[in-house]
Amino acid sequence: MGARFCPRVLAVSDPKQTKVVLDEAEMPTHWYNIVADLPTPPPPHLHPGTQQPLVPSDLAGLFPPGLIEQEASTERWIEIPAEVHDIYRLWRPSPFYRARRLEQALGTTARIYYKYEGASPVGSHKTNSAVPQAYFNKIAGRTRLTTETGAGQWGSALAFASQVFGLSCDIWQVRSSYEGKPYRHVLMETFGASVVASPSELTEAGRALRVQFPDTTGSLGMAISEAVEAAAKDPSASYSLGSVLNHVALHQTVIGQEALKQLELFGETSADYLFACAGGGSNLAGISFPFLRENLAGRAATKIVACEPKAAPSLTEGEYRYDFGDTAHLTPLLKMYTLGPDFVPDPVHAGGLRYHGMAPLVSHCYHEGLIDAIALRQREAFEAGVLFSRAEGIVPASESNHAIAGAVRQARRATEEGESPVIVIGVSGSGQLDLPAYAEYLAGTMADS
Amino acid sequence: MGARFCPRVLAVSDPKQTKVVLDEAEMPTHWYNIVADLPTPPPPHLHPGTQQPLVPSDLAGLFPPGLIEQEASTERWIEIPAEVHDIYRLWRPSPFYRARRLEQALGTTARIYYKYEGASPVGSHKTNSAVPQAYFNKIAGRTRLTTETGAGQWGSALAFASQVFGLSCDIWQVRSSYEGKPYRHVLMETFGASVVASPSELTEAGRALRVQFPDTTGSLGMAISEAVEAAAKDPSASYSLGSVLNHVALHQTVIGQEALKQLELFGETSADYLFACAGGGSNLAGISFPFLRENLAGRAATKIVACEPKAAPSLTEGEYRYDFGDTAHLTPLLKMYTLGPDFVPDPVHAGGLRYHGMAPLVSHCYHEGLIDAIALRQREAFEAGVLFSRAEGIVPASESNHAIAGAVRQARRATEEGESPVIVIGVSGSGQLDLPAYAEYLAGTMADS
Repeated sequence: MGARFCPRVLAVSDPKQTKVVLDEAEMPTHWYNIVADLPTPPPPHLHPGTQQPLVPSDLAGLFPPGLIEQEASTERWIEIPAEVHDIYRLWRPSPFYRARRLEQALGTTARIYYKYEGASPVGSHKTNSAVPQAYFNKIAGRTRLTTETGAGQWGSALAFASQVFGLSCDIWQVRSSYEGKPYRHVLMETFGASVVASPSELTEAGRALRVQFPDTTGSLGMAISEAVEAAAKDPSASYSLGSVLNHVALHQTVIGQEALKQLELFGETSADYLFACAGGGSNLAGISFPFLRENLAGRAATKIVACEPKAAPSLTEGEYRYDFGDTAHLTPLLKMYTLGPDFVPDPVHAGGLRYHGMAPLVSHCYHEGLIDAIALRQREAFEAGVLFSRAEGIVPASESNHAIAGAVRQARRATEEGESPVIVIGVSGSGQLDLPAYAEYLAGTMADS
Repeated sequence: MGARFCPRVLAVSDPKQTKVVLDEAEMPTHWYNIVADLPTPPPPHLHPGTQQPLVPSDLAGLFPPGLIEQEASTERWIEIPAEVHDIYRLWRPSPFYRARRLEQALGTTARIYYKYEGASPVGSHKTNSAVPQAYFNKIAGRTRLTTETGAGQWGSALAFASQVFGLSCDIWQVRSSYEGKPYRHVLMETFGASVVASPSELTEAGRALRVQFPDTTGSLGMAISEAVEAAAKDPSASYSLGSVLNHVALHQTVIGQEALKQLELFGETSADYLFACAGGGSNLAGISFPFLRENLAGRAATKIVACEPKAAPSLTEGEYRYDFGDTAHLTPLLKMYTLGPDFVPDPVHAGGLRYHGMAPLVSHCYHEGLIDAIALRQREAFEAGVLFSRAEGIVPASESNHAIAGAVRQARRATEEGESPVIVIGVSGSGQLDLPAYAEYLAGTMADS
């Protein structure tokens, strides 16, 4: 009887197999740290005052020891604590699909797969890092977390994670998303968090921004300033960041580790292309770093493509230099592709991609030529998202639509050239709370920023 | 290697196992028809003119032959067509969880499990019937489907299913839900359907209702009248119903078949209690009829509890008699527990439960004492839903909260009595699109209807 339940057996024997869902025992036990395998070391974060590489004590006011250690770690594998692993069980391993109906809709010769993170508690990959962040804060004795959020994916993830570990959670949400996507802050509140629109009256940074830019719709950079300030003023609080930093990228590598295994269970030896959306970079890093490891070890030659919005094109149009992560210059200096901390993007619907910079690790890999990048306008992204919804029955997050659009371009090119590449898409989340953006697209009123 | 992937092995060997996700090869191949096993035959549907039992030709204007045959079938097992099975693969088998964190939050001695239908394309169990309904219409040559929807779960399911089989789809949505839950109709539109608020100006029934009740917020009974009228006037169209009828209950039995298998994989021989929400009855029928089969065969003694809203208490406060399914008296007469076709419930948030009657098969089972029923007010339901969200990381649909509240009552009772029953909850859907109702509950402004 037992053998009937084995996806490893079924994947190769069932010609219609649509998905591979691993058992909990197949969940990764460690996070993968790409730093251990990079040909050149990534530039360190710098202290904004001294311009010298950060030492752990520089971060002690903001982060707990466990996360500071991970931020600078060069160990290849970092064990996932049992308490975190137990919570991951609620939604991990996440499913991995062969997009058979999307292939049919495109009439493509490519084989398209996607890894779907939308079945998590908040409908995105963000809980993969929120849960360990809350855990390491809890064991360090912190009782409160502060953070910023754009579309609300990260905020709701941290709200859930804080609830799990009994921490209070205060969230500054970019005003345009707070007002345009009202369901998201209700989700955060359902998980027990407090949410305000940023810039707010609750912080010095927020009050100053409201004087300087009375009509601003906010930005992630502004919201970060507020959350950092609030944490810095409260010794029982930590600040928590949903993307950009090395430890966040690290936590997300559970995605790529699972995807590699699941792709293999479909009988594929490797992927030719991997498309993932990139805002701050955590989703891209999470799915791609395990694939990049295969490339660096000579076991694969997967072309990894970061898909960013034309409205915030940090990789494709930014400068590679040290910059602040926030508007108020409260964060360490990070070496990254950046549009400058004062950059306020058009109010593109993919709120999670509206960031001025790109994760230092992703930036380094891009600078070294290890990954590629393209920028897409939002109408092309939503056209692909609607096609995907109708074929696969999953309405993707606005952010994920950028990756799908990149993959659709590639599949069409392959068909024209008579090739059959294996294309993997990282679908970072569900779009059930992005439906107002779909309404605009369907009504033909979406700006093509 | 293979054995590591087998949930059947792992379920008993992993003390922290949180969920069992079966492989696609474990999906049911047949729908289960409870009629074959009932001790007494359920009363037939009647022709509203002749008061005689319906013959297949009476339904030919509304439904395709495949569904008419299923409506009257007494066969125990009805094969799921390959084309339907292939689409089920997109989200089935659905996951089955041990609610370990809910148990901890309650401090209960009970073992609580739940079957979760919220990971389907539209976030509910409704696609289980929408897909076969669209399929049997397609092979009968119909090109258009009409339907009604309350909260929008059924409408979005039929919108998706129509898209899959290339049918056009027109949906009348109860006005209170259309206006109060705007994301839902965008979801239907994303899948390619047309949606109007009911009562509408598009049908005679709708126009008459608007004259008679100018301020009405609509009801499922009214919306059914409109959709039935539209289909009856168009020979290329069929009407499609998301609950109540025998063939809908039949399609939903994939839920209970999977749940039985998954419960066994957790090492449980049977359930002591099964709680499921009941509006029209399809969710309740789907999860419970396979359990009821076990009871009838003497292999189990599961107490099956229908959880209905106090605002539309058809089982607990209705009359068991022949009644119309709609306001305009266009449907066949159905023997059911009913509050009367003119009943307009308070605008309770669980739109999917706002129906005046109960599926004839469920009504018959209730009348025969094979299942129990309780009615719950919505504040108790949402209190349980918030508790569940924070523990399990899944925000349940408003409807599902009624089942969770029933199970929470039972778990507390068991704890007081020092018993350790196995409690299974049917969580029929996700509440991501019900967040405005959660907002009201959290703000303390929800009416306790």
